[in-house]
Amino acid sequence: MRDFSQDHRWLSINTATIRKSRGVEQPLTDIIEACVQRGIRAISPWRDQVAAAGLPAISKLVKAHGLELSGYCRGGMFPATDAAGLKAARDDNRRAVDEACELNATCLVLVVGALPGALAGQAVHKDIALSRSQVTDGIAELLEYSKANKMPLAIEPLHPMYAADRACINTMEQALDVCDALDPSQTGALGVAVDVYHVWWDPKLEAQIKRAGKERLLAFHVCDWMTPTTHLLEDRGMMGDGVIDIPRIRGWVEAEGFAGYSEVEIFSSGNWWQRASAEVLDTCIARHRSAV
Amino acid sequence: MRDFSQDHRWLSINTATIRKSRGVEQPLTDIIEACVQRGIRAISPWRDQVAAAGLPAISKLVKAHGLELSGYCRGGMFPATDAAGLKAARDDNRRAVDEACELNATCLVLVVGALPGALAGQAVHKDIALSRSQVTDGIAELLEYSKANKMPLAIEPLHPMYAADRACINTMEQALDVCDALDPSQTGALGVAVDVYHVWWDPKLEAQIKRAGKERLLAFHVCDWMTPTTHLLEDRGMMGDGVIDIPRIRGWVEAEGFAGYSEVEIFSSGNWWQRASAEVLDTCIARHRSAV
Repeated sequence: MRDFSQDHRWLSINTATIRKSRGVEQPLTDIIEACVQRGIRAISPWRDQVAAAGLPAISKLVKAHGLELSGYCRGGMFPATDAAGLKAARDDNRRAVDEACELNATCLVLVVGALPGALAGQAVHKDIALSRSQVTDGIAELLEYSKANKMPLAIEPLHPMYAADRACINTMEQALDVCDALDPSQTGALGVAVDVYHVWWDPKLEAQIKRAGKERLLAFHVCDWMTPTTHLLEDRGMMGDGVIDIPRIRGWVEAEGFAGYSEVEIFSSGNWWQRASAEVLDTCIARHRSAV
Repeated sequence: MRDFSQDHRWLSINTATIRKSRGVEQPLTDIIEACVQRGIRAISPWRDQVAAAGLPAISKLVKAHGLELSGYCRGGMFPATDAAGLKAARDDNRRAVDEACELNATCLVLVVGALPGALAGQAVHKDIALSRSQVTDGIAELLEYSKANKMPLAIEPLHPMYAADRACINTMEQALDVCDALDPSQTGALGVAVDVYHVWWDPKLEAQIKRAGKERLLAFHVCDWMTPTTHLLEDRGMMGDGVIDIPRIRGWVEAEGFAGYSEVEIFSSGNWWQRASAEVLDTCIARHRSAV
């Protein structure tokens, strides 16, 4: 297991972590500059932030600084209620692959979607098995395109509390079953993003990380689970402040050969997004050394 | 699958559902009378409510009305940091068995506990595997006592969002692994409580219900998952208001031979606990017919 205590060379910042500074939305260019100033070598930006700044500008900035992308957030959201909706999702996912390629990302992270309409508070149906089937079909179709463009797809199993509205793939086992079905020879074109927040509770986690193996462990995300958790989406904790034994999980992932970045992804409307982004970044660096 | 549309003979009310009426705590005796008035034949009371009213008084009332108990809430909370804590949990669980026997409950429901201290916001450690081991040991020990007293124990897998503070058994598969380990011959002394709120998301749910079979399906709880869900504990929905396909899950359970009560258990500080309990009960009866 790598020693993170001496430096932060393997730290990546998911740009959602400091998308707000003292509650105010930050341009991606500022976020990138703040990371670079601190010797952070990798980021994982969100598509809406890239779009707001302009893909060419961000691409240029990333290259100028020699920044790596530990992932690109995000593709997915495959389920729909009709053919037009499914096609729109397909087309949008192909654009996400194109952008990830332009930015030379390690992988495109997939938050696969769930019951159509649920994210807006009005699910159109309750058939989660149907959504899961549409997700598998959507990934299968996208995989042809992403393989041709040499962009690995990382399925991110989301915590079961998001099964209705964000992602109906909710365990590592389920994600790896999809990988087995669509990429049985483990080419590395399809794998998983392991976010400790989503999977820490899973009694089968260690076994499924072993099952994934190096070829399918495409990304590793960290934050912490707070007790109590006061909001289902935006109350993630800073590493070390919660109950997740992050070093143990990192040990399992690295035992399989994962040697990439440890990406900090914190949504925190009540705490970290209320602080100055400089403070948040400095804390990420300190906790990367002490608690990851 | 039984037809629930014509009557509510298989409806049970978990007394937490109307523990508050217009925000005011209700005595268990009033809750029981309100159920009886509506021809509800079964309840599942909580230990603190029974203790407040007095076990002998409640026992007498339940018998006078010929009420059944679809379960007794609850034993569990096994993990502790020292021998004294483990012994205190053991003793308290034996008392819960005694009370369940006095009330002639169908089963004692187990919410098994998780990281010591986490429920109070300060977890003493992060070793969920240790907690799980203590839970298995605690159930093993309690099982000797409960078998001698002929009181079945129903492990309730709780949603993974409660893994830190309430229960570290989080899937049907995990609960059934414990059943296999401790009661391999499937005597009926140890089984599961299937609460749709906790397990609806699980891609392995149908298969695990089949695996459980009639002997281990000891209780069936219903409510609904709202989108959005605004509170991790107290924002459960009324059946039919959320995204859970309850009839489908009931179909799976009944296909295995489950023929017990469908128990409504709703924690809802912002909505149902703010209404008059008469309205809540009438709604439970209507939704039992139309949405379960």
